[in-house]
Order: sequence, then C-alpha cells, then structure tokens
Amino acid sequence: MSAYDEDTAVKPTSDGRYAGTVSNRWDIAGAPNGGYLLAMMLNAATNEMSHPDPLTATAHYLSRTRSGEACTISVEEIRTGRRYSTAAISLFQGDKERIRALATYGDLGSAEGPTDVVGSMPDVAAPEEIAPIQGGVGPFEIANRFDYRTRSALSYLTAGDPVPEDLEPSFTGWIRFNDGREASLTSLALFADAFPPAVFNRRPFSWVPTLELTVHFRARPAPGWLLSRFSTNYLIDGLLEEDGEIWDSSGNLVALSRQFAQIT
Amino acid sequence: MSAYDEDTAVKPTSDGRYAGTVSNRWDIAGAPNGGYLLAMMLNAATNEMSHPDPLTATAHYLSRTRSGEACTISVEEIRTGRRYSTAAISLFQGDKERIRALATYGDLGSAEGPTDVVGSMPDVAAPEEIAPIQGGVGPFEIANRFDYRTRSALSYLTAGDPVPEDLEPSFTGWIRFNDGREASLTSLALFADAFPPAVFNRRPFSWVPTLELTVHFRARPAPGWLLSRFSTNYLIDGLLEEDGEIWDSSGNLVALSRQFAQIT
Repeated sequence: MSAYDEDTAVKPTSDGRYAGTVSNRWDIAGAPNGGYLLAMMLNAATNEMSHPDPLTATAHYLSRTRSGEACTISVEEIRTGRRYSTAAISLFQGDKERIRALATYGDLGSAEGPTDVVGSMPDVAAPEEIAPIQGGVGPFEIANRFDYRTRSALSYLTAGDPVPEDLEPSFTGWIRFNDGREASLTSLALFADAFPPAVFNRRPFSWVPTLELTVHFRARPAPGWLLSRFSTNYLIDGLLEEDGEIWDSSGNLVALSRQFAQIT
Repeated sequence: MSAYDEDTAVKPTSDGRYAGTVSNRWDIAGAPNGGYLLAMMLNAATNEMSHPDPLTATAHYLSRTRSGEACTISVEEIRTGRRYSTAAISLFQGDKERIRALATYGDLGSAEGPTDVVGSMPDVAAPEEIAPIQGGVGPFEIANRFDYRTRSALSYLTAGDPVPEDLEPSFTGWIRFNDGREASLTSLALFADAFPPAVFNRRPFSWVPTLELTVHFRARPAPGWLLSRFSTNYLIDGLLEEDGEIWDSSGNLVALSRQFAQIT
C-alpha cells in the first residue's frame, strides 16, 4: 500500500464521522503539511457526497494539527443538487477543531460545455534531464515522499551551492510520489502544497504557514509526472498569496491552487 | 446614504444572527450578484469577530438567492487567536441556506513583515480618457450602480459596435460606485464580481453563474478609482476559473480574487 493511501485512509465511525491518524510522514519541521490534511478530509467527504469529484475546495487552518495523533473528520452535505453538492468538513483532534473546509463536488466525467484554453504548460527541460533532489532539505520529512525535479532554490541548497540572488519568487518543478503511486484527483490537494513555497527562492528556509488553501480540481490526472508552476507576486507586510498551476504528463491542466499565507 | 451601505446593512436579532434584505439593485438578469451577497455577509461577520479586517473569504453558492426578499445571516466565530480569527457564515432565506462562507480576519493595520512586490498595476489609459459605459447592458441592474471605464466587449456592446473576434478572455477596467461612495475593504468582495465575466469577451451574454468565490483582502483602498484586471485562462468543458487583481488609485494592490464558475 502506498504511503499516500495508508496515511489518508479513514474509517467511518458514525453518521458522517470518520476516524483517521495524522501521519508524521508529511511533516515540515514537525507540522503536518496542509495539503496532505485537506486530501484526507476530501477522502472522507467523498464517501458522503452525491457526486464523485471535488471541483473546488477551501480549507482554513485554525490551529496546529499534531502529527502522529488520531483525528476525527466530520462531513456534512449542506447542499445537493442535480449537478453539484457541497460539504462542510471539519478535522478535530480531541475536542479541538483544527481545520474547517468547504468543498463543492460534481462529476468531471459528465461536464459538458465549451473549452477555450489560453494558458499553456510551461516549456521546460524534461524531468529526466534534471537531477533528482535526494532526501530532505532540512527537517522536511515530506521531501522523502516525492521525487522532485526542479531548478530552484531547492536544487541549489541540496547541491550545497549558494542560491543566486536574482531568482524570481516563482519556479516550475516536476513531481511524483516516490513509491510509484500515481496521482489521483483528490491527491492534487497535496501536490498543490508539496513544494517548498515560491518565496523560498528569495528567502530560503523561511517559515510560511498556510492560513487558507483553495484548490480547483480541473481534470483527473494521467499517469506519470506532474509539472507544477508556483509563484508569489504580492508579499506585503509578511502576508502573501501563492498561486499554483499543475499539469499532467498529457499536457492537460489538472489543478489550480491559491493559498493565503504569512511569513513568520 | 449610499446604495451600497443601504443594501448591505444588517440588524442584529439574536446571538450571532442578523437580519437583512437582498436588494434588487445588484441584480444580473434577476439574480443578485454573488460579490454583493458576500459583502453583506462579511458586513454582518465583522460585528462578531475579534479582528477588524477580512483577510481571506470564500463563499460557496448553494441555491439561488432571491432579490427583493429578506434574509438572515448567521455568524459563528470558530477560531480566535492572537493574530487571526475565523468565521463560518451562512445566508438563509426562510429555512433555506443559500450561501455558506468561511472568512479569516486579522488586522491589516498591524501586519508586520517583509514586502516583495513583483506584480504591477497595468499601464492603461486613465479613466478620464475612456468613455463611460452608460446604463446597463441588457438586464443588468447592477450596471447602474457603477461607473465603468473599460475597453472590452462591454464597451463595444454599449456603443452598438460589433465585438472584435480576436479579443482575449481578459480585460482591464476602471470602476467606482456612481453615487460617490468610496470603496471600503469589505466592498472589494463586490468589486471582485462587479464586471461582466472575462469570458464575455469571446462569448458575449453568456450566463456564467458562480459556484465559489474567494477574495484575498490585501490593503484598505485609497479613495478614487479602482483598476481591475480579470482573466480566464482555462475554460474546460464549461467550467472555468476567473482570476482578478484590483489596485487602488495610489497604485497599491488591494485585492486578489478567484472564482470557480460554469457556463450554462
């Protein structure tokens, strides 16, 4: 069983409630990754919903989730219609609510309407031409779960080279699970948060906790590498957005993400 | 009293509950604008929160809100900390929940940390050099609430000219309330949804209901015109994102927005 499947598994306990365990395998300096936790919440919600696919999900991180501890996830379907249904999802540890999310579900397989794609997959070197980043950078347990292929601050730091001073606060990077697990639609919530922050390019090792993460799930990913582009255009008084675009190996856009975070 | 203040006014009725009326002055073909409704919900929430400013808010539109009818807004502060507090907000008409939102509040006035701005205000003709768009385009009551200055499908249509076929699904536009009311921080939720959709440039008069709208509130706007840029890069099988950036008259970025919508 893949680490992702094992660590996002949930068991129904009563009406709309699920039990899970927050693994420490997705930790960043002792705190579990926010995208990982959202993926687990959506994994629970999918059982309750009238439609199969998350389309847009937003999580607000209320208090720090503890890794290595049990959690309870509650799911309430607050709207169900012909084409869409919406859930309010909470992750608790003990009595303490750690995360609240809203997610609207639909069926990407039956979506019908015009297509007009203006954006395009970044034209970058193939993953095979980029050296893999081995192991973690600092205390990032999560880095051991992925094969990352990127030319960014991350690659300079793991190679032991100084980070150039003129890097933009944006980068592209290939990524896949390093145990052979293919990306699923729901796992894109994790992939949207799996790289170090784009501001890392200018401020290596900054601590950038997420306050809110929104992911739009646009297509079920094809097997193989994912290519991500992340950027932060507006860091103002320590608050920032990070925008992400994720493509699959067929060149299709599969997710858009935006998070609101702070540098502490 | 300005139309905006009058139409977003709410009265406390009991613990965490507010009464309001959904005005028809912000209608699009008989349906109230989603940004207007989010602004009213935040207006209610601000009374309950431990911090003064919305920082990031997401609304999921569950069922069509009816204009000209009363509504009830419930606000629950689900987290309060030193720097941030988070609310779950619901808008009801009768027993029917129309909109669920989550919003994290903070204090932009006391935000501290690094600033690194890479994006910049679009360099476009001043509003005085662009002809105002008079009255509504079709059954858009909301268009009577704003002074719009833009060169987009909207300007061709109101001038009675054919829309060029090579317009991008993006545009910039100046905007302000046409009764002299200055934009407030909370009103940016409305401004983020006040222009016709960017896909209108290629598909005039398409009906583009919002499923989810997220707004990041980045700075309190200076008096005067706002400049917005909206774009849709990925219309896929009738589903789309619309990204917005809003600057104030001082050239500061004041909001980022992204919505998930469908073309029907």
